[in-house]
Amino acid sequence: MSQWIWYPGDYEIYQNMLLHSRRQEFGVDYPCFWTVSAPYPRVNFFRDIDCKEDGEVTFFIRGTGYLFFDGARCAAGVPVKFSAGKHRIEAVTLATEGIPALFSDSDIIPTDGEWYATPGTYTQDGFDVAKTAHECRRVGCLPAYTDKDADLSRFPFREETIKPVKFVADGRFTVYDFGRESFGRVCLVTEADGVVISYGESYEEAVSYGKEGGHSSLVYERLSERGSHELASRAFRYVAVLGKAWGVCAKTEMLPLNYAADFRCDDPKVKKIFDLCAYTFHLCAREFFLDGIKRDRWCWSGDAYQSYMVNDYLFTDRETTKRTITALYGKPPYYEHINTINDYSALLIIGTAEYVFRSGDTEFLRFLWDKVTALYDFIISRLDERGYVVGRPGDWVFVDWSDIDKTGAVAAEQILLFQVYRSMADMAGWLGMADIYTVRADALRERIERDFWCEEAGAYRDSCDSDRNHISRHANIFAIIYDFCTRERAEKICRSVLENDNITKITTPYFEFYELMALCKMGRLDVAQQTLTSYWGGMLSLGATSVWEAYDPAEQGTEHYAMYGSDYGKSLCHAWGAGPICFLGRYCAGVRPTSFGSETFTVAPDPGLYETFTAKVPMRDGVVEVRYDRGRVSVLTALTGGILVFGGQEKPIIPGVVCEI
Amino acid sequence: MSQWIWYPGDYEIYQNMLLHSRRQEFGVDYPCFWTVSAPYPRVNFFRDIDCKEDGEVTFFIRGTGYLFFDGARCAAGVPVKFSAGKHRIEAVTLATEGIPALFSDSDIIPTDGEWYATPGTYTQDGFDVAKTAHECRRVGCLPAYTDKDADLSRFPFREETIKPVKFVADGRFTVYDFGRESFGRVCLVTEADGVVISYGESYEEAVSYGKEGGHSSLVYERLSERGSHELASRAFRYVAVLGKAWGVCAKTEMLPLNYAADFRCDDPKVKKIFDLCAYTFHLCAREFFLDGIKRDRWCWSGDAYQSYMVNDYLFTDRETTKRTITALYGKPPYYEHINTINDYSALLIIGTAEYVFRSGDTEFLRFLWDKVTALYDFIISRLDERGYVVGRPGDWVFVDWSDIDKTGAVAAEQILLFQVYRSMADMAGWLGMADIYTVRADALRERIERDFWCEEAGAYRDSCDSDRNHISRHANIFAIIYDFCTRERAEKICRSVLENDNITKITTPYFEFYELMALCKMGRLDVAQQTLTSYWGGMLSLGATSVWEAYDPAEQGTEHYAMYGSDYGKSLCHAWGAGPICFLGRYCAGVRPTSFGSETFTVAPDPGLYETFTAKVPMRDGVVEVRYDRGRVSVLTALTGGILVFGGQEKPIIPGVVCEI
Repeated sequence: MSQWIWYPGDYEIYQNMLLHSRRQEFGVDYPCFWTVSAPYPRVNFFRDIDCKEDGEVTFFIRGTGYLFFDGARCAAGVPVKFSAGKHRIEAVTLATEGIPALFSDSDIIPTDGEWYATPGTYTQDGFDVAKTAHECRRVGCLPAYTDKDADLSRFPFREETIKPVKFVADGRFTVYDFGRESFGRVCLVTEADGVVISYGESYEEAVSYGKEGGHSSLVYERLSERGSHELASRAFRYVAVLGKAWGVCAKTEMLPLNYAADFRCDDPKVKKIFDLCAYTFHLCAREFFLDGIKRDRWCWSGDAYQSYMVNDYLFTDRETTKRTITALYGKPPYYEHINTINDYSALLIIGTAEYVFRSGDTEFLRFLWDKVTALYDFIISRLDERGYVVGRPGDWVFVDWSDIDKTGAVAAEQILLFQVYRSMADMAGWLGMADIYTVRADALRERIERDFWCEEAGAYRDSCDSDRNHISRHANIFAIIYDFCTRERAEKICRSVLENDNITKITTPYFEFYELMALCKMGRLDVAQQTLTSYWGGMLSLGATSVWEAYDPAEQGTEHYAMYGSDYGKSLCHAWGAGPICFLGRYCAGVRPTSFGSETFTVAPDPGLYETFTAKVPMRDGVVEVRYDRGRVSVLTALTGGILVFGGQEKPIIPGVVCEI
Repeated sequence: MSQWIWYPGDYEIYQNMLLHSRRQEFGVDYPCFWTVSAPYPRVNFFRDIDCKEDGEVTFFIRGTGYLFFDGARCAAGVPVKFSAGKHRIEAVTLATEGIPALFSDSDIIPTDGEWYATPGTYTQDGFDVAKTAHECRRVGCLPAYTDKDADLSRFPFREETIKPVKFVADGRFTVYDFGRESFGRVCLVTEADGVVISYGESYEEAVSYGKEGGHSSLVYERLSERGSHELASRAFRYVAVLGKAWGVCAKTEMLPLNYAADFRCDDPKVKKIFDLCAYTFHLCAREFFLDGIKRDRWCWSGDAYQSYMVNDYLFTDRETTKRTITALYGKPPYYEHINTINDYSALLIIGTAEYVFRSGDTEFLRFLWDKVTALYDFIISRLDERGYVVGRPGDWVFVDWSDIDKTGAVAAEQILLFQVYRSMADMAGWLGMADIYTVRADALRERIERDFWCEEAGAYRDSCDSDRNHISRHANIFAIIYDFCTRERAEKICRSVLENDNITKITTPYFEFYELMALCKMGRLDVAQQTLTSYWGGMLSLGATSVWEAYDPAEQGTEHYAMYGSDYGKSLCHAWGAGPICFLGRYCAGVRPTSFGSETFTVAPDPGLYETFTAKVPMRDGVVEVRYDRGRVSVLTALTGGILVFGGQEKPIIPGVVCEI
């Protein structure tokens, strides 16, 4: 069946551009501050096709353009008759806005993934795939766009109309409660000009519209004219209306994802937390993996990196991972780091390798390769004479919001660079290319060990260019996660850093995710489980219907909603809060791929504090079910390649047969 | 005074994109087949300003965005009060279509050329010009866009309403004759649905609408609804209307250029030809230097290269040269040659150097430099192991429409490469950078002389990879123009190639320009003068009101209008026909710059066949007047740096004083 086709990656780049133009705060547009790529305005499409029967085809073009049908020029929008047999079709398109795209109305000559596209040119002798110029590739397309009038600027969410579960009059406002965190387009009929809609993830936020300074709700709009409205897409649980209106409902926009994963244990709260995390993650998995749905709604590489991992243990939704990675790379050349952050460039490359390892998707890697190498070259071009990452003009050496000594070369950045080298080596290997990276990784490791490791502290210090010898958790966590250090040093780090209350605590859920993963990896799953109950459980007790951007149990009432200097600046639905899904599946149920494409995997359960649990963990195109009951483990899956590892024993898992230890 | 400001070069890139989407033939859109760059969608603007007084400013943004005024976030469209003294203003903008742009309504804080812009980011600590990241530059702006509602997609032509000088009823058509070749928007009122407008550069073309195959007029449109119309911009002298209409007129669009140049001699026809050329060139000098105004209306680097030269002897309109060069470079990286043609990439670099030499505009060169080097690197990346230009996949080794042996390495391409090296050496020198190019030029020259020169033929052969030993004029012309060969060899070439009727004649006005320049340079101005009278004079006798794309005196009637397989495929207003302006000014009047920025120049008249002539030749920001009368020359100019060279004598030209020999 025909679909609209475009230059591959340009749909993602176009949606990324639209997405990053949509943020508003206090009624003011707030586009992102980093570089955004644009789609190619001019694209040529090509296909050689052997038609089984005679037929007629009409092509449609987004932008301006024309076609060559067997070398004869013809117009879009005009039917062309053709006979059975071989035909060569070329289309030249140029769109001064949106993305250039092509669509045919024929099932005999459909526009589909079999076409090629290039932002370059066909040669004078016509196009020859064998002589592909740089940048000539298989087209992109989506099953959602099969209509000739399809709107490519509109992302194909699954839509559902929801109604408020209740409403109350509160002073000047009528407040509609939709029961839980939602995302979509509020619809209503206003009976006067100038009605104001104020959105709230909390009730207090919705009714705070109009307060001065940072005390108002973050997102609101004024409807200048009376009438029927379908508003822009927003996050909300509560909608406060100021002025006469009726018929308030909302059309939600969600990806149609399959909830393959599950986790239950003897503590019933854990299942509730798992569902809370899953729903939060689902809301944030949109055009791309977003940080959160209320405020930024931007695509941050560090947040997205964690989302790839959570996604693999929840939806295994390859498409959103691929869209996100594609959008984050944008188009070379690179003049600044991804999101302007040094670590985020590294995490994009590392995340790419991890996705390809788990999925086995070398086709996607091949599509990305020139971007990966361009970003790698950009990173390398900014190293210092020692081969260390340092902050160059325009760089944001982020790591985390914490007290880190960022003088000169920072340990966390170097360990990420080490992992970049190893990721490049892996990816080059999967593509059958030379490995010029491992020697660099080895040399860098040696240098880092020499410059940053403090034997007396049992830890890597933040900076090797400073006299402070300051220790923070961050580099030490990365050293464990990325198998940078020996097991012996990792255990030392565990004792002297992770379990040492004198080392400044992690304060952001972002790095908390990495710390929990490191603890799980070091066999301290119980700490993660305790945090799950106290931290995530705490939000649940306060009535959260999605996981917050941050949570401090010591705070009271609306203090919970404040952040970044605004009373309601905090996002109450943030993807990085969904981490438990990953550590429950990966470390508690213990399901982990062990070879390229997840062809083989181990199931090595670690119950930690739980006496019983039942887990469904997605893997490849199937599910692994793991049951644990007081010392006994059983695994059932239809997949090949599994090995159960438990209590010092190993057993191959036979597909369709319960495997027990 | 405030102007809309944008990232420099992006306005040109945007107009280039629009321009290349506008071609239509036989009712079908026909965008260009080569790569087109897009503007940066997201741009940050910056300025530090010391205000002399208090005031209020409102900023306006194209796209979405906001501002930081002294670090405080504020919205576009909302007035901000400020006090006298220093302020720092930053704006973040993102446009999902068009170009992101900024405008202020204040004369105290105007948006003007003093601002900086970057498609990258400001740092977390705000912007610091001293730490400019790559791509941070002074903004672009134009005096035409001083209104907050200005339409940046509309190029600021000078408009004038013209009326037909007569109209006739011809069968089904009413044909309006505007008296001469024109370009603009036809306006009319139609009294029925479906009225058809057919454009003609010739009468015959206008009334040929509706004929099958290639026999119709090239450009026409059907107005589906009755009413008042202002149509898209087109080229025409004749407008044939099929259906009931009245009030036919046109709004012409021209650049407001100053006719500084003039040339008259004892043959009155020459002045008419000069004016014909000047008008033709004026019509084709638009957003950019176009090939012609009817058919392609595209920006071709080879055509444009000749236009820079003609322009220097007619309008010295730097802005159009700069816009053209900027649009042709577009944005690196390069995956294909400019217009896909190897020689056109070379001519862009050569043309850049020539423009900078003549104008002294190092600021423009600095702006272009990363593009120049990227294009140079692209050219070099495709050389063969001998260092020769060869046709790689996707390349179009054009040189000219002629019988040239294009096997392997082609001489004309190598001589252009030689000139590219020399141009790079010059440009690097003007920017105070190292010359890594001259050694390459010297090595290449040696190799070319060895591989291509045929002593017995007294010429360079087309290909060194072929047994044909075929000689054509092209490489030999380039060898003279670019001082590639010794004077001795040039004279040999003159005899054995240029004046040898056995060597295939040049058939395109494009290469005819180069040949005439070579002849003039070799002291054979008389040949150029004869061609002027016969070739250009011939078109004039046939009633041409602008110079045609091609002209064959042997053809009859409407044969003159056919080209590229269509009865009216030929453009009757083509820039490359304006070459006489250049050779009359440069060789007949003999005015030629001799140092960087045209700081010094010679006036070395060569009357050729003329007994008397009077020439006004523009130079820098002035004019040089040259009079010749039967062996006596006098020169008058307000400019410094001139030397009169005539009859074996040399005299310095004193500004404001007639200099005679």
